[in-house]
Amino acid sequence: MTSTKVRHTLEQIRPLMDAQLASDIRARWNQLVLPPGSLGRLENLIVHYGIIRGKVQPSIHRKGMYVFCADHGVAAEGVSLWPQDVTRTMVRTYLRGGAVINAFCRQFGLELLVIDMGVRGPAESGVVDCKIAEGTANFTRTEAMTVEQANQALETGIVLAHEASTRFDIVGIGEMGIANTTSASAVVTAITGRDATETVGDGAGSNETSLNRKMLAIRVAINRHRENLTAPFGVLRSVGGFEIGAMAGFLLGAASVRLPVVVDGFIAGAAALIARAMAPDVLDTAIFAHRSSEHAHGFLLDFMHVEPQLDLGLRLGEGTGAALGISLLEAALRAYSETSTQDEAQIVRR
Amino acid sequence: MTSTKVRHTLEQIRPLMDAQLASDIRARWNQLVLPPGSLGRLENLIVHYGIIRGKVQPSIHRKGMYVFCADHGVAAEGVSLWPQDVTRTMVRTYLRGGAVINAFCRQFGLELLVIDMGVRGPAESGVVDCKIAEGTANFTRTEAMTVEQANQALETGIVLAHEASTRFDIVGIGEMGIANTTSASAVVTAITGRDATETVGDGAGSNETSLNRKMLAIRVAINRHRENLTAPFGVLRSVGGFEIGAMAGFLLGAASVRLPVVVDGFIAGAAALIARAMAPDVLDTAIFAHRSSEHAHGFLLDFMHVEPQLDLGLRLGEGTGAALGISLLEAALRAYSETSTQDEAQIVRR
Repeated sequence: MTSTKVRHTLEQIRPLMDAQLASDIRARWNQLVLPPGSLGRLENLIVHYGIIRGKVQPSIHRKGMYVFCADHGVAAEGVSLWPQDVTRTMVRTYLRGGAVINAFCRQFGLELLVIDMGVRGPAESGVVDCKIAEGTANFTRTEAMTVEQANQALETGIVLAHEASTRFDIVGIGEMGIANTTSASAVVTAITGRDATETVGDGAGSNETSLNRKMLAIRVAINRHRENLTAPFGVLRSVGGFEIGAMAGFLLGAASVRLPVVVDGFIAGAAALIARAMAPDVLDTAIFAHRSSEHAHGFLLDFMHVEPQLDLGLRLGEGTGAALGISLLEAALRAYSETSTQDEAQIVRR
Repeated sequence: MTSTKVRHTLEQIRPLMDAQLASDIRARWNQLVLPPGSLGRLENLIVHYGIIRGKVQPSIHRKGMYVFCADHGVAAEGVSLWPQDVTRTMVRTYLRGGAVINAFCRQFGLELLVIDMGVRGPAESGVVDCKIAEGTANFTRTEAMTVEQANQALETGIVLAHEASTRFDIVGIGEMGIANTTSASAVVTAITGRDATETVGDGAGSNETSLNRKMLAIRVAINRHRENLTAPFGVLRSVGGFEIGAMAGFLLGAASVRLPVVVDGFIAGAAALIARAMAPDVLDTAIFAHRSSEHAHGFLLDFMHVEPQLDLGLRLGEGTGAALGISLLEAALRAYSETSTQDEAQIVRR
């Protein structure tokens, strides 16, 4: 059911293995004035980034942050403590510069792009207008989106990633959308087979009623759509969101052009899960920023066999963890490129 | 045996409890356009920093990094794989800007001060010259330092902290000194009562021989100096280092003037352990940057009941973890001070 464009992108994704380059980077690192291994996980990050960029001495100059925004029909089930129009309000807040992600982007020198994938109401001035519809359908009653809409979400992400690769050395991806943890939990349930009790968490805040509604909505949807859930495209179409589809497409597009993408939290992680199910090697260009405190995120990362950079108990979304992750990688790369070698410092080991 | 100046500083250290201020900061935080709790550990950091500064809306403008350097007589026991003159070589590298801590200071806008507390040879041009002697004595044979030298190390730290409080909003402390993990492990053994097998780790690299030498040196020293080890000053004097004493004094001085100090790794942690044994409330102004991969560091942090910011497997020292910790706190504070309130964004919760 995937479109020709999506299939074409999937075919372009190759595993990024380069044992020689990895070895060259480690060899250069081990010449620097520090004990080998003493920068811990930052050393692995440098090797990973170098392999994505295909360079022994890669650098980071231009940094982007893509925040994908959309509304969700399942919000009508009362799964969130926040009214649905908060999606739109937060889009306005991003455009005004008043959110945490804005503060982080200023702090770390990231250019922020706000992508309207399907927020209710007309597109705000200042967003990248990729609106597919004014929110998905309520997936407890029908498919969240049509086949065409699901392809459009993926293709939009692919195009944006290709465009980003001409402007940025690295990008972060994050999201905003009231009720989108419900959609993300449904995606995780559908692909991993775990029950809703294991995939549902607090999201942007919860109480017993909202948690029960989330679990019920997911169980109803999994049952209703079970014939669609055997392939990742069907999962996206049935229980996903426009911003989730766009992030999945973005990861696919980025992998096809070797653009490093720092993935934010649980919802971006669910998009990565869809992309990985479509093309297992897609995660070779992805760096996972953090393990959030959202219940199922740790499990999701473990399921994908990926190790996040940070563990700070974040659960805000909107790319905030990804911004911190980019900052950490940038500092590590700066150390790698600016530190003297032991020869330069005239150090002779015993 | 502590000097009048040290005792005077200890008397000035008060617990920093301000339930009203903590509550005011949390109340302000909870008005912002994000779900309460969604920035996880960063929220606790903001409250902690605010309480140290005594302000509902504290800020960070001027940031310092103090790297305390000294040589250790116990290096003669062959406990390190690196020759002793690497201490001096690294001091020169810091002054030339060629170390990882230099790259991190440039990345995060930190002013670097290199403190010569007792490096072998004459003081290099560019260091803050506080040299007490050209290295401590070999503590397997005699006390590492005299009573006067131990007091001088503490007093130097106190004076530097008082001076720092006039120039900086926050500072990091780190260190360099070949064989100083042996000294730090001896300090931890002496104060916590754990055996050397539990307090000794890789340091700047090790093999079976060097690890055995480290453990033997510590056991010999603990036995030789046991009459001195009942009080923290005696521990510092017997098995400490000039840079460790200066960092302990720095923490005491900082606490007496409410200067926030971000503590780097295992050796700075051992200095904090001494300072805490002298004045339990000293850690109210300390922020622990990270849990290093040095064997006993996690245990040391647990022993002091402190929670570090990061866990990245670092074990380099020289303040590198503290620099990352300051950057993280700065980003959190920026979010706190620049994010819109829900009223400003016109968000109404259900």
